[in-house]
Parts: sequence; structure tokens; C-alpha cells
Amino acid sequence: MTLLADLLSTVFERRYRQPARKGQDNRPIEELACDLVGSAGETSGLALAADILSGFENLSDDKKLVFFQYLATAMNIDPESVRNTLDDYERNPSKSSYRAFLTAAEPRRQELIRRLNRVPRATGALVRMRADLLRMVKTDSELAALDLDFRHLFASWFNRGFLVLRPINWESPAHILEKIIAYESVHAIDSWDDLRRRLQPTDRRCFAFFHPSMPDEPLIFVEVALTKGIPSSIQTLLAEDRTATPEDEADTAVFYSISNCQAGLASISFGNSLIKQVASDLSAELSGLKTFVTLSPIPTLTRWLQANDAASDINNPDESKAVAAHYLLNAKGHAGLPYDPVARFHLGNGAIVHAVHADADVSNKGREQSNGTMVNYLYDLPKVAQNHEKFATTKEVAASAEVRALANSSPVSQP
Amino acid sequence: MTLLADLLSTVFERRYRQPARKGQDNRPIEELACDLVGSAGETSGLALAADILSGFENLSDDKKLVFFQYLATAMNIDPESVRNTLDDYERNPSKSSYRAFLTAAEPRRQELIRRLNRVPRATGALVRMRADLLRMVKTDSELAALDLDFRHLFASWFNRGFLVLRPINWESPAHILEKIIAYESVHAIDSWDDLRRRLQPTDRRCFAFFHPSMPDEPLIFVEVALTKGIPSSIQTLLAEDRTATPEDEADTAVFYSISNCQAGLASISFGNSLIKQVASDLSAELSGLKTFVTLSPIPTLTRWLQANDAASDINNPDESKAVAAHYLLNAKGHAGLPYDPVARFHLGNGAIVHAVHADADVSNKGREQSNGTMVNYLYDLPKVAQNHEKFATTKEVAASAEVRALANSSPVSQP
Amino acid sequence: MTLLADLLSTVFERRYRQPARKGQDNRPIEELACDLVGSAGETSGLALAADILSGFENLSDDKKLVFFQYLATAMNIDPESVRNTLDDYERNPSKSSYRAFLTAAEPRRQELIRRLNRVPRATGALVRMRADLLRMVKTDSELAALDLDFRHLFASWFNRGFLVLRPINWESPAHILEKIIAYESVHAIDSWDDLRRRLQPTDRRCFAFFHPSMPDEPLIFVEVALTKGIPSSIQTLLAEDRTATPEDEADTAVFYSISNCQAGLASISFGNSLIKQVASDLSAELSGLKTFVTLSPIPTLTRWLQANDAASDINNPDESKAVAAHYLLNAKGHAGLPYDPVARFHLGNGAIVHAVHADADVSNKGREQSNGTMVNYLYDLPKVAQNHEKFATTKEVAASAEVRALANSSPVSQP
Amino acid sequence: MTLLADLLSTVFERRYRQPARKGQDNRPIEELACDLVGSAGETSGLALAADILSGFENLSDDKKLVFFQYLATAMNIDPESVRNTLDDYERNPSKSSYRAFLTAAEPRRQELIRRLNRVPRATGALVRMRADLLRMVKTDSELAALDLDFRHLFASWFNRGFLVLRPINWESPAHILEKIIAYESVHAIDSWDDLRRRLQPTDRRCFAFFHPSMPDEPLIFVEVALTKGIPSSIQTLLAEDRTATPEDEADTAVFYSISNCQAGLASISFGNSLIKQVASDLSAELSGLKTFVTLSPIPTLTRWLQANDAASDINNPDESKAVAAHYLLNAKGHAGLPYDPVARFHLGNGAIVHAVHADADVSNKGREQSNGTMVNYLYDLPKVAQNHEKFATTKEVAASAEVRALANSSPVSQP
Repeated sequence: MTLLADLLSTVFERRYRQPARKGQDNRPIEELACDLVGSAGETSGLALAADILSGFENLSDDKKLVFFQYLATAMNIDPESVRNTLDDYERNPSKSSYRAFLTAAEPRRQELIRRLNRVPRATGALVRMRADLLRMVKTDSELAALDLDFRHLFASWFNRGFLVLRPINWESPAHILEKIIAYESVHAIDSWDDLRRRLQPTDRRCFAFFHPSMPDEPLIFVEVALTKGIPSSIQTLLAEDRTATPEDEADTAVFYSISNCQAGLASISFGNSLIKQVASDLSAELSGLKTFVTLSPIPTLTRWLQANDAASDINNPDESKAVAAHYLLNAKGHAGLPYDPVARFHLGNGAIVHAVHADADVSNKGREQSNGTMVNYLYDLPKVAQNHEKFATTKEVAASAEVRALANSSPVSQP
Repeated sequence: MTLLADLLSTVFERRYRQPARKGQDNRPIEELACDLVGSAGETSGLALAADILSGFENLSDDKKLVFFQYLATAMNIDPESVRNTLDDYERNPSKSSYRAFLTAAEPRRQELIRRLNRVPRATGALVRMRADLLRMVKTDSELAALDLDFRHLFASWFNRGFLVLRPINWESPAHILEKIIAYESVHAIDSWDDLRRRLQPTDRRCFAFFHPSMPDEPLIFVEVALTKGIPSSIQTLLAEDRTATPEDEADTAVFYSISNCQAGLASISFGNSLIKQVASDLSAELSGLKTFVTLSPIPTLTRWLQANDAASDINNPDESKAVAAHYLLNAKGHAGLPYDPVARFHLGNGAIVHAVHADADVSNKGREQSNGTMVNYLYDLPKVAQNHEKFATTKEVAASAEVRALANSSPVSQP
Repeated sequence: MTLLADLLSTVFERRYRQPARKGQDNRPIEELACDLVGSAGETSGLALAADILSGFENLSDDKKLVFFQYLATAMNIDPESVRNTLDDYERNPSKSSYRAFLTAAEPRRQELIRRLNRVPRATGALVRMRADLLRMVKTDSELAALDLDFRHLFASWFNRGFLVLRPINWESPAHILEKIIAYESVHAIDSWDDLRRRLQPTDRRCFAFFHPSMPDEPLIFVEVALTKGIPSSIQTLLAEDRTATPEDEADTAVFYSISNCQAGLASISFGNSLIKQVASDLSAELSGLKTFVTLSPIPTLTRWLQANDAASDINNPDESKAVAAHYLLNAKGHAGLPYDPVARFHLGNGAIVHAVHADADVSNKGREQSNGTMVNYLYDLPKVAQNHEKFATTKEVAASAEVRALANSSPVSQP
Repeated sequence: MTLLADLLSTVFERRYRQPARKGQDNRPIEELACDLVGSAGETSGLALAADILSGFENLSDDKKLVFFQYLATAMNIDPESVRNTLDDYERNPSKSSYRAFLTAAEPRRQELIRRLNRVPRATGALVRMRADLLRMVKTDSELAALDLDFRHLFASWFNRGFLVLRPINWESPAHILEKIIAYESVHAIDSWDDLRRRLQPTDRRCFAFFHPSMPDEPLIFVEVALTKGIPSSIQTLLAEDRTATPEDEADTAVFYSISNCQAGLASISFGNSLIKQVASDLSAELSGLKTFVTLSPIPTLTRWLQANDAASDINNPDESKAVAAHYLLNAKGHAGLPYDPVARFHLGNGAIVHAVHADADVSNKGREQSNGTMVNYLYDLPKVAQNHEKFATTKEVAASAEVRALANSSPVSQP
């Protein structure tokens, strides 16, 4: 593998400093895009693609919208052509009739995006392009269709098999670490010293997924604390003055923060793979680890309580816990799935609701979103697959007996 | 980039030695494939995919054919469903109607192949799977359609932007070098000593494209000789007892052998990019290089002469040269393109026919395929793009004045 | 070289986390040291050495002093034995009589230090040990002798041929960068943002020497600014709001800060090699660079003026400049060498005094040490060797005509 | 550590291709050497050193001898000066009197060798220089003294703490592998296919020590077979058609070949460290390994039998075994140590004689040197240190009860 390691570093260092071409093509970007899809050869295509990508980054939002609308309409499928090639193929199924159908049934903008991706560093530019698109897509159904095309291609390119898991630690490059600071979205990192406290102690770990074509950009990362026993407070877990647990004394790995880094990769899911891969790696490295658990926020509890006029029914921490348990088990949103997005994520991964804690996040954010309660989702590795299957089939929320009992004692009982 | 380098080496070494799962699922592979496409979650999907891939590799050819036929028929598009979703979409274009159409218009086997690719090391296995398919596809139009799906996905995954160019030299890993020996398809490498002669001297270079998900497998490689002046004999160029040209005295880079390595990547073209990238890199590294040229075989000259009953019209080396020039300029095959496949490749890349040599390859193979003649195609970097465009448009063979004159003196003049 | 790269990373990661042994030997450290020098085999020696090194780090200063005194006296040379073996060798010069003399003439503590160095990571520990020694050595001539032994061995181990030059940039590991912040001793770096301004812009560079046995510790580093023309003010050079010079427009490389990092490597000189190596590397990388120059403090100007009761003779910036020029050219210290330590360093390296600037460092420190003046030393690469030779022979300060003229106009003229 | 990895690869690639200087100094090498020791500064020193090293490599043996004799005589210690500085130091022990003594007591050629070593790549050149010296040293006591100086410096530079252990496998660079083929000195490797059989199967391992300043040159390597049970025949162990043992089924690691690679590092011992490090690493990696053992030749058995007129007393394999056991336990050479060099090495490392086998090496070499017998030395890791101490003290050969019994039945009983 060393070859690969070496090769990538060599190539990136050398190649990507040099512009691939001289002289920008200054025609409107739509015209360039049209040319690129028509271009037979790679030679002129690369220059065109580079011009489109760098041109796009410099456009105003208005112009970007025009470009997206162009892709959405002028490069959409042509229904007549789909029907005709489909008829041909049905009458006479052959390699060439099938090829004609495939070509007609795929909007030309997919081929455009693939051709744009030939340029070095293009993948990151396309991810940023989709981030722009997502800002603009809202209710515009034509742009929503365009977004589906991006998503279709990204799902193929950011396939799990192409991702690389990488530990992030105090020996990682500063330009990666500053992105960890910027992208942390659960419990903010407020300085380099704070970052060091999350990375350097023997009982802290961090892992991120990378894609070989975007080596400077983490896609998603998870922060892990190694503990003795399951923690019940994020402030205690992250206290500046705590004593680090020696890694061979830890029995529990706590996933206390998971952050997606790329707005442009929304709906391309990595979190599931990340948690399982990290749990499996840690388990292999530290044989003392027996429990894999999260310490998670309950981000929409307050909102749900308010929507149900139940926020005022809670009088003490015990009731707070019980209500949270009830909410996690019973509050449903779209399609009968849990109302809480974090619950949806972990239950969908095959975890179960293991324990609920009051006064577990006493920050303003914690108080506001869930009255300070937090939850441990448990990843019981041998059972994760079957939990996942069951949840996918029945949408039933799996929970420990303790949590189920707690939920039954809730003063709030709206479904 | 070091991060990436390090990360890849680490991950590969650690992860890929361990089997991802315990206990093979022994149901028929077709049933597993059906399950995999239906499987909602990644968890069970990974195990299924691994079982399918390892199961497939152990099948007999008969069973592989059955599996391919299953994909070709049971996982084909359903024309009725395409029509219905298309009608819906036309009537009511929306995100969901578009998604329904996209899903219907793409055969389920494409999604199957994408899911198979989530397993570590799957990409190589899928490339080998397509190599099997290509052996079997022949005239079976259903399998040909299946192959188009593989090709469609591979074109996306092996996008130029994902490939990595790597020098191959005497310090490269032995397991890569043995593949260079095995895959060389133009001028066979008959031993490790012969290999060393192609890699170690100061006037020899070799470069290969790799894909990050198949780091042990070169995709295509090119061998280069640095020379003073343009060479006219492959035997002289590769003579064991020649004296190496110091690299700062060389004025010419000769691409004397290009070999595709992966049968399963047939029709996914890398050669064009490879030559241009290598020419551009060498040009940056060695400022003395002014000329980029091939020393190429003319593989189908004899066949064409025989087909035209003209093989016996050649009486001496001069006539041999003139006939070769005539053939290269005028002999046409499919779609008005040059009859000679190597000519098609280089002219399509934007090179021109620069010179023709008699007695340039006096090996048996050289004598048989072209009466010993060889040709230099010239890559004039500033003109490559426009040459390419012109050839794409007019199919006219660009050649030096010298070669054109030579062609005019040919004793054979069949078109 | 990839092999080496790979090998070192692998080995370090794996090996150096695990303690080499179980169970510390708790005898007094002096007893362990005595055993280690006597120990015939490496097997027990490694454990002993590890115990001594870790034991030493935990000693109080008093106990460290006792240990150093033990080495200085009990492990000193035995003059009688030197004389006897020398007589034997003179009478009968043979391999064994020579070996006996060599053994007698080298204090046993040198062999002790070498054996301590066999333990992984020992080199760093020994450098820290010498840093302790240097704190204690003062006027104690026995400890001074011990220090000479450390220095003798370190000069051999930190031989230029074993050092590795490494660019430091914003992609370097955070644990290295925090050391750059800590060790910068000329113009303090006051935050990670300040550090980024020294590393990330296109016109900033930083390089450090490392030793393979202390890969986490820079030995010395130099900060470089790429400029158009020679700068005359450090505040302008480091201004937060300046515009970066594109690297291909720069004609001058300015070495504006050189910091030694390891107190324990005092008197082991790297700075000379570092500047020349960096100048030569930059010159190869950026062909536009024509001038290699420092922007240096004049740290002892004020002290010298005060010692000569001349501080009050300066009335304006012009006089300030002229006095600084006079001082640099004429003020002598020990052994007829320049009084100014920075001048001694650069002149000893073969640089010349190129220009002097008033109001060049308006920080408190700059005002205090040199009334705000700074100096450019010029490294004229083709002449550096002959400048160096001349300075070594004549101790004459080489300077530009401009600086010589300036010095002549100085209102202060003490020699 | 990645930093180091990266840094070394970068530096080596860049720097070592460029000559450090223009224009060779053509004076006699002795004159250059004299200058170099006198040279105050590093600047001119580097060029001088490079000239001496490259000059030396091109000398005839006669001229090399003259150079060595020059070092041996003109750069020897000056006894008078040693005495004077020693007297001074005794009368007035101070830093400067100690420094004067140290300088006088060390022959100037040691400083010369250190200065030569400042040039990039010099370490390898000095190792080759000592290889030349060792060829010439024979009985010349002055050259023997010079060799002691080389050895003294090399022992310091090739300190265990500076060495790096590296697995050698089929993914190692070809230029390293060809050296493994060349340097294997126990059981010759006769082709690249043979090499692959020693490296690629799951039950084969190879490890080498490297020095960071000679990254292309293994210093010593050991070949290991993973087996079930202790093997009794080298031909069986290396049989081309054997079935590889899966690595998790192996219970025994067999060190079947250890080869020193650098003639110029004679008497600088690495083998001891290598075996223990490899045993410890394998033990950590493969928990099933319980036994660490060699399968070793008995190279001087036949010679000893002939010297004792006992060669003809052996009539069958059983007697052959018994005689070998007797020889290993009782035959003494210099200083009461075992007569057999391989026995001396392993017993000195703390191994014991575990078992003796007849017909274990049926090659011509095996037949000739030991009548086909071989021996297993057992490395019982927890006991190695105490075995080593005991052997160092008592010189008594430790052996299993079985071997001791066997020895008692030997038909030959000369001591």
C-alpha cells in the first residue's frame, strides 16, 4: 500500500499547483457547458471543464441560479426521445438499441457533471456547487430534479468502498484540524486549546472519513471518549480539569459528537458506516472495551413538547427524564418514524435507546432544546444488524427495560 | 497530502487483512443479489455483497453465465414502468415523479453493482467480473446490454479525476513490477533483468495510472526512452549493450510501448490522458526535451495487404516503407476511420504520422505483422488539441510532408 | 526512499508506544550506571539503560547534580592508566595496545552515554539531560569536563549528514507547530492565527532540521519571507494586513528569524548549514530569487553604547543608522571577533553586512536593544565560501560600500 | 511519525540527485584530508569531504593503501602531546585542560572521518571504505589501529537506538530485494522466483535492520518460517511444493537464515538485537506463536572432526547426531568459548541448544560442513537475559536434557 501512499502524495504535490491550462474561455458558462457535453475528445474537454468550474465559483448567486436553471431545463431528458428509444429497444433488443435508450433516459446534465469531474480537484468543486444548489432549491421542482442527478452521481462516487477512515489527532496537519474546529456542530470547539483537549489525552479519539479526491476535506467525523462506565453528563465528560482515563482501564467508548462537514453531501449518508467502523477498530485495538454507546442530544424534545402544549408539565429532573424517555419511544414524525432526528439516525443504524439522563447538558443550547436531558444510544455490535432490520421493518423503537419503565412514568403522554 | 498518503497506507494495511464478516451465506448467488438490491440498510448489505463477490469468484463458467443471464433479464428495465413513470413526470414534473422515472429507467442491476462496490476491495473484483462477462458476451445481445451497464458505471468510477499517475521504476514494489512484466503486450519483457533494463538506466522511464481502490493493480502503463533524435529501430532502442543517454542530453521522449492491464476495463479509455500527462510531466522535469514521439508497430499492415492481394508487390525496404506510408494514410476501416488500430488511437489523440521506417522491428512478430516497418507518431503538444478536433471532424489523417511524399511513391495503391 | 519513509513511520508507531520492559530497577541511579558500563551484553543493558533514563527524569535537581558529579568523578579518566597504556603502545604498537590506550584515554562516562542511547527515544532524553547539566555547570570545572563529553558525542550523532531538512507549513502536524510557537525566540508568535500568517501565505516559508531519532522535535528552524526588494522594517514585513507577494514575483528571500530549539544542543551548530541549504533549495525551486538576505536584530548595540558612554550621542534616525554601521564594522569582543553575536554568526557563515536601517524594529525589544535599527546580512551564494575563509583568517568584517561609507559618518567612533 | 516519514522521503528524493558542488579538487587525497581536518568552517569542508570520498572510490588498491597508511601514521596520536596535556590536566583540571587532553588523546583521523560523514550519503561511502581497509589490514598493526578508529565511530553511529527494523516482503522495492538475493549467505536464493517463495507465502517472513543514512542498504536480515512444530530439515522447510501453513495455525517461528550485508560493518553486532526484536514483534502480532527457534548450520563440525582425526568414527545418522551434540556442548575454541561460530553467536544471545538433527541439510554444503547435521537453538524469551548472563560468566553451554543425553552417547569424545 505504500506505493499508493507515495503515489498520491507525489501526484498531488506536483500536479495540483500548476494550472492545467492557459487562457480562460470567456464565453457564457452555459455555452461552455453545452460544448463540453458535445465535445468528443478529452483534450478540449479538460480545458472547458476547468473553465466552467472556475467560472462558476466566481458567479453571483443570480448567475448561478441561471446556470442551474439552464441545466434543469435545457439539459433535462427529452420524453419523446425516451419513448422512441424505448420502443425501438422493446421491438429489437440489441446492444445499440439499449445504448440509445440508456442515453436518452439519462439527462445530459449527468454526463456534464461526470465530464466536469475529470479535472483535478473537481470533485470538491462539484460538492461546493451542490451546496449552492441546495441553498437555492427550496420549492423549485425543476431544481429539485437537478439535485437528484447530483445526488445520484455523488452516491456512486462517495460509495463506502472509496472512503478512507483516518484517525484525527494532535499530530494531524493543522489545515485539517482547523476544519475540525470549524465543522464541529454538536458541542462547539472554541479554541486550539479546546481542540487539543479533545484529541491529545489518552482517553480521547477522533476519526474522520476522507475521499481520495478531496484529501484536504474531512467528510464526517466522530469524537470519542474512552471511559469507565457510561457517562451521564456532557459537561463532566468534557471538563477541562478532569483526569484522563488510562486507555487500558477504559471499558466504554462514548461517541459524543458526530458532525457532517460538507453541506454539498447532504443525504449521502456516511454516519452509519463511520460509527460501525470506528467501533470495530477500537474494539480490535483495545480489548478492554466492552460497551459502545453515544451521549447524544435530544434536539427536538422542547419543540415537540411545545407543539403538544406539554412543556409546562415538567416539575423536576425525574419528570424531565421520564418525559424524554416517553418522547424517544413514542413521539412519531414523518412515515411513522421517530420524531427526533438523532433518534432516527441511531435507531436506523441498529442502536437502541439505552438510558436517559437529566441535567446532562446544562449549556444554554442543552437547556433550550431538551431541558438539559441527553440520551445514550447503545451499539451492541453483535445485535446491530438484526436491530437494524427490525427497525426498518417495524419502525418500533428498541429500548432497554429501564428506559421503557421510565417512559411509563412520564407525566406527559401524548403519542 | 501526506495525510492522505499516510491514511491510505494505514487503513489498507489494517483493514484489508481481516475478513469483514463471519459465515458465508450459502444461498444461490442470484438470490443473494436479489436480496442485496432490496436491502434497505447498509449493515446487512455489506455482508451480502461480500458473499456475492467471493461466491462469484468460485463459480464455474457455466454458473457465472447463469448469473449474468439473471442480471441481464431479471434485473433489466421494465418498459411498462418506464413509460408510466415518464407519463407521470410529464404530466406532473416534480421531485418525486422525476425520482420515480430515474429509478424505473435505470436497470436494477446498476444499483446492484453499486452496492457490491461498497465492500473493501470490491472494485477490483468487479473489474474481474466484467472480464469474465466480456469473454462470454460475444453475440448475446442481452449480455451486451449488461456489459453496457458495467461500462457506464466504470466510466464514472474510473473518471480521469480519480486516477493517479505514478512513475514505475526499479525502486517500485516487486508485486507491481511482476505485473508490469505480465501485462507488457507490445514488446515482451522476458525476465527481471530485462525489466531492469527498461526501468533503471537514466534514459528510461515508465509511468502507470492507478485507481485508489485498486492500489495493487496498474490500469495502463507506458514505457519511455529518452534519446538524442528520433529512433528508427526498436531493436536498437532496446539493445542490451547500448550506452545510456545522460538525461540532460536527451532531446526526445519516445513512447515505445503502451499496455492496457485490465481486460475488465476494455473500452474505458486511459491511453490518451496517460500520454499527454506523461509528456507534460517529462517536459516540466527535463527542459531539454523538445520532441514527443512514439515508435509504434503497424499491427494490421500485412493483414490489409493480404486482403488486397498486394503483399507480393514489395521488393525492397524502400518499397516497404512507401507501402506502409500509403497504408497509414489511406487504408480505411469502419466508419471511414483508419484501418490500423494503433493509427486510430494516436491520430484520435491528436498526434500526426511523422515518419515511417523499414527494418525497424526485425523480430518475428514485427516481420509478420508489418514486414518489419514501424512508425513514429508525433505529439506536438501545442497542436494536439486542434489536431484532435480536426481528425474528429474530418477523419483526415494528418502526416508530415515527408510521409505524404513517401505514400505517393507506394507501389501499392489500393485505397 | 519511500521504503525508509514507510519503515520509519511503521516502526515508530508500533514500537515506541510499548515499554520495552516490565518492572523498574529501583537501585540508586549511580549503581545502575556503573552496572551498565560493566554490562557485557546488550540484553540486560537495554533494561538498565531504560531504567536510568526514566529514573533520571524523575529526580530532583539535587539528585541530578549528585548523579552528574558521580559521572564527573567516578567515571573520569584514570591518568595512571592512560600513562601506562600509552607507554605500552609506544613500546609495542599493536592492535591490542592501541585498543587499551583508546579505552583508557576515553572516560567511561562516554561509553555510558553511548549505551544509554541504545534505548528507543533515548536521544531526546539525553539532550534533555544535557540541558539539565548546562543549567548546573556554571563554574564547576568537573561538570564542565562532563559537558565536553556530552558535546563530543552529540557532535558525532548530530552530524550534518544525519540531519533532515523539512519544510514547516500549515499542513504540518499540530504537535510540531506548537513547538514552533514555543521555540520562536526572535519575533514571538503570539497565537495560532499569528502562526498561520507566518506559514500559509504564498510568500512565507519555514524550514527546520530534524534528527531521525527525535522526529517530534525540531532542532532549529528559520522563517523566510519572499519579497520584491530588500525589506527595511520587520513590522512592515510582518504586518497583518499586508498583501502577499505571488511567489513568482519575488526576487528576494529574507531570513528574518532563526531559532534554536534544544537547550541541550547548545554549541552544536546547525544554523550555518540550515541557511545555506534553504537558500540553495529555494534557489532551485524559484528561479526568480536573486538575493538571499537576512533582516536581523542588532541585539547588543545598546549595551555596547552604554559601556562606551556613547548612547546619548545619537540625535536622529540618520545618526542611529550610522552608529549601527560603525558598531557592526568596528566593535570587537572576545578574540578580536565582532562584539555582536548575530554579526559573529552571519559573518562566520560567509555573509557580509549589506545595509543598515533605522526604525526597522519599533517594538519595545527593538527600541531597547538597538534603538530600533536592524541590519541585512547578504548571503551571496557564489562568494560565501571565500567570504567565510577570509573572515576566519583575518576577522575582518566584510561590508557593502554603502555601509562602510555610513560607518564613516558615525557620530560615535569608539573602536 | 508521518512527518518523519514524509520528510525523509522528500529530502532524499530532492537532494541526493544533485551534486553538492561543481569542480573536483584534484590535489592528492592525502592533502585534501589534511586540509579537511584543519578546515575551520563547514562551508569549504563539505566540498573537500565530497572530493575525498569520490576521489577515494576511484583509487586503485595501491593508492588506497597509501591513503590508509597516511591516516595510520600521519594522523595518529602524538604520545608527547598526550602526555603533556594529561600532565596539565592533572595539575590543573579545568574545562580547557580537559578539552586539550581529549583532543590530544584522540587521533586526528577520527575527526577526519566525522567530517567526511557530513556529506549526504557519506555514511555508506565510509562503510565501503572500511570494507576496503579490512581487505588490506591483515597483519599490519598500524592499519589494525586505524580500523579500531573506524569501528569506534561506527559503533556510535550504528547504535541500536538509530537502527530501524523493517519487514521485507514481496511488496518491498525491487532494488532492496535484489540486495536480499545478493547478500543471502546461508541458503542461497537462486532466482526471483526463489525469493518470492521466501517472502510471499503466508508462513514466511523476513526482517532487516536499516540505518536512516543508508536507506537503500539493508544492514542485516533474518528469514523466518512459521511452522507447526519445530522443523528438522532445511530442505523440507524450503521445499518448492510444500503447502503454506496458515499464519493463525503456526505455533513456532523458525529463524532459518541470518545474513550480514555490509562487509564494512564487521564486528558491529546487530544480530542479537535483530532476533530479539523480531521474536518480540512476531509474538505481539501472532498470539499463537509459542516457540522461537533457529534451524542452524554447524559450519565447523567437519573441520573440528578432521583436526581431531575423528571424522571416520561416524557410521550412521544416529552417531552423526550424537557427535554433533557432543561437539556443540564440548568443543572449545578461543578463550574457552564454543569452537563453533554459530553456536557462539546464539549462546551469546541467550539461546540454548535445543535439538540436533541428522540429514537435516543434504545439500553439498551441508554434507561437507557438518555431515548434514543441523541444530535448533531455542530462544525462550523470558529466560534469554538470564541465559545470556550465565553464559557470559561461566561460558557453559546450556542445552536441553535430550541434547545432553545425546552428547553422552557420542562415539567421539575429544574435548
